[in-house]
Amino acid sequence: MTPAEAVWGDVERIRATRPLVHNITNYVVMNLTANALLALGASPVMAHAADEAADMAKIAQALVLNLGTLSRPWIEAMQLAAAAARARGIPIVLDPVGAGATRFRTASALNLLQSFRPSIVRGNASEIRALTLAERVTKGVDSRHDSADALDAARELHDVYGVVVSISGPVDIIVGGPRVLRVSNGHPLMPRVTGLGCTATALTAAFAAVNPSLPAAAAHAMAVMGIAGEMAAEGAAGPASLEVRFIDALYALTEDDVRSRLRLEEGE
Amino acid sequence: MTPAEAVWGDVERIRATRPLVHNITNYVVMNLTANALLALGASPVMAHAADEAADMAKIAQALVLNLGTLSRPWIEAMQLAAAAARARGIPIVLDPVGAGATRFRTASALNLLQSFRPSIVRGNASEIRALTLAERVTKGVDSRHDSADALDAARELHDVYGVVVSISGPVDIIVGGPRVLRVSNGHPLMPRVTGLGCTATALTAAFAAVNPSLPAAAAHAMAVMGIAGEMAAEGAAGPASLEVRFIDALYALTEDDVRSRLRLEEGE
Amino acid sequence: MTPAEAVWGDVERIRATRPLVHNITNYVVMNLTANALLALGASPVMAHAADEAADMAKIAQALVLNLGTLSRPWIEAMQLAAAAARARGIPIVLDPVGAGATRFRTASALNLLQSFRPSIVRGNASEIRALTLAERVTKGVDSRHDSADALDAARELHDVYGVVVSISGPVDIIVGGPRVLRVSNGHPLMPRVTGLGCTATALTAAFAAVNPSLPAAAAHAMAVMGIAGEMAAEGAAGPASLEVRFIDALYALTEDDVRSRLRLEEGE
Repeated sequence: MTPAEAVWGDVERIRATRPLVHNITNYVVMNLTANALLALGASPVMAHAADEAADMAKIAQALVLNLGTLSRPWIEAMQLAAAAARARGIPIVLDPVGAGATRFRTASALNLLQSFRPSIVRGNASEIRALTLAERVTKGVDSRHDSADALDAARELHDVYGVVVSISGPVDIIVGGPRVLRVSNGHPLMPRVTGLGCTATALTAAFAAVNPSLPAAAAHAMAVMGIAGEMAAEGAAGPASLEVRFIDALYALTEDDVRSRLRLEEGE
Repeated sequence: MTPAEAVWGDVERIRATRPLVHNITNYVVMNLTANALLALGASPVMAHAADEAADMAKIAQALVLNLGTLSRPWIEAMQLAAAAARARGIPIVLDPVGAGATRFRTASALNLLQSFRPSIVRGNASEIRALTLAERVTKGVDSRHDSADALDAARELHDVYGVVVSISGPVDIIVGGPRVLRVSNGHPLMPRVTGLGCTATALTAAFAAVNPSLPAAAAHAMAVMGIAGEMAAEGAAGPASLEVRFIDALYALTEDDVRSRLRLEEGE
Repeated sequence: MTPAEAVWGDVERIRATRPLVHNITNYVVMNLTANALLALGASPVMAHAADEAADMAKIAQALVLNLGTLSRPWIEAMQLAAAAARARGIPIVLDPVGAGATRFRTASALNLLQSFRPSIVRGNASEIRALTLAERVTKGVDSRHDSADALDAARELHDVYGVVVSISGPVDIIVGGPRVLRVSNGHPLMPRVTGLGCTATALTAAFAAVNPSLPAAAAHAMAVMGIAGEMAAEGAAGPASLEVRFIDALYALTEDDVRSRLRLEEGE
């Protein structure tokens, strides 16, 4: 099986089985991530009340914990849902949005990491670095580390928590053991659309719902994100038309698109 | 008056009087439903704080209670707003999003139904079925009942609570007495856009604000939804461009569009 | 320096320095305002938890307090963030969404105005009037005062609180002393897009982050809003395509666009 066949196999499984992805995520991106999951073929649900978070996780095939616009009731819901997800063995994907920007976010991310051992952590390089001891200091939300700068931090997180780490950037790096996966798909206009990082996290959960190899699931999600982004950028007049075209491209994605565009490599 | 003239009369009344629709609704769809109400010609307001829910309902012409992303503070606000709306006699439209998926949602929907007797309940077939005794069991959020499968449940809800029931699906069914209305407008791509069901609920409230016949108001809203959706699908490249074109079509809707496309029938 | 050069200088400073704008804002507009700030060149962050509101304001270059979908936890966060912003001397921009519609909103707006002395208040004419003693009565959320009708109220607010007042409307009026600025850019379709008023507030904060003259910053933000709106309206089929084209236009804005379109005047 070629890498493109493996990516496409996951897309077909998502379209055929429509995995239910339970998102406890931030207000800014809820609409976009729900639409991206629907366009890909998955079935999104957003539910954050302590009264139902565990019940919803019990009928889902994957759980997303996203720390943007975090608050205490949200953390409580995440803990209840994560415990239910752990008990059932469904994948949990953590997005430590803004870790490093405030103590509250860094501490909340570390607490979830330590207590519930998510399957995959997906963040930008600054966020991943902020989760390691050496970097646990307050910094801006928008610091511009390159994904390669977070490779050591990702290895440390993988060693300590057994978590697969997906670092997004111009080259996405997935760390799930001694060898790493690198995805070079994408377009420079994508970071100008709010919530595409959070969307990558949601799609990662959909792929993890159908592919038991977590590093492969994480890499395939980033590849599909990047390929749809490239297709969207062709003809986009700016970030908003890119966003519209990105969702349309996810929906219309074909095996040919994946085969002709995929830039996924395994290395060290 | 033909059915098309009746639908168009409501649209003209909404555009002329700009009814204020108070929405206590979910985070995922707030932006979309506000834009849909504005495009149709109504005036949306979103307000969920217990401190002001009743005050806002007092200046509104219709109230929407939508259970997506429900939580306890939201329920409290819904109760306060519903009591104020009942006291003034303005229409209340309930959307039991995800009823059946968790006990919390099913119980909350039933509680609102029993305590405040909404004018109209709008949901998909699974949600409507979940509100009847026979179906009050936990199931997935995305079960695929056809609207016709919920006809008995809708009749039961109408008999017990006196509520008009609007079941959405490829054919929308409105139950408001012995005879039922069926609307066959719409497009298969519409369920791939998150929140179009919730948007149907919000538009139903706008129509109920200007048309005292609740079954007619519910049917006219579903017809306008479906017609705008059909117009949007022509030329759409996927769900996101469909959404953009849907809002534009609501805004630009003409009497000719309604006359040439309306598929509304009365029967049993 | 011509007015167009002054506007363009601010845009270039925003693009070069990417000021971090901390938004405590309403659910309906979070996604749109984040995208507008990103398209303009600024860096948005949304954070409302009492646990981190002050920490986030401490690393920001401007703070937005927006009262749409207000609730008590939101007010607490606004107070904590406003105190931190005051201590650091960064600009605070207040948007009293719906002031006048409920006592809760009017009282909350006045409390923030009195306690934290925001740098700029941006609202429509009804909202600005509702903040003055003479008008502190409950009214609809959508009353249709012309911006000129709020000029006396704006002068009163400026005299009492020392705040710059930006009244939006077909002609935007900025009151920051004896003389006033008037911006006539914009398009009549813009009020049909939910959240463009809130977007004006967010952009005002980005301009205030780079321009120490608060009246100029407020006027330049309204001018850029209006110019992007005019460019977006050309070719838009309705409110949703206008919104997409507006964000794209903000991103692609050039000095020529500003020079050829700017309608900014100083007067009395």
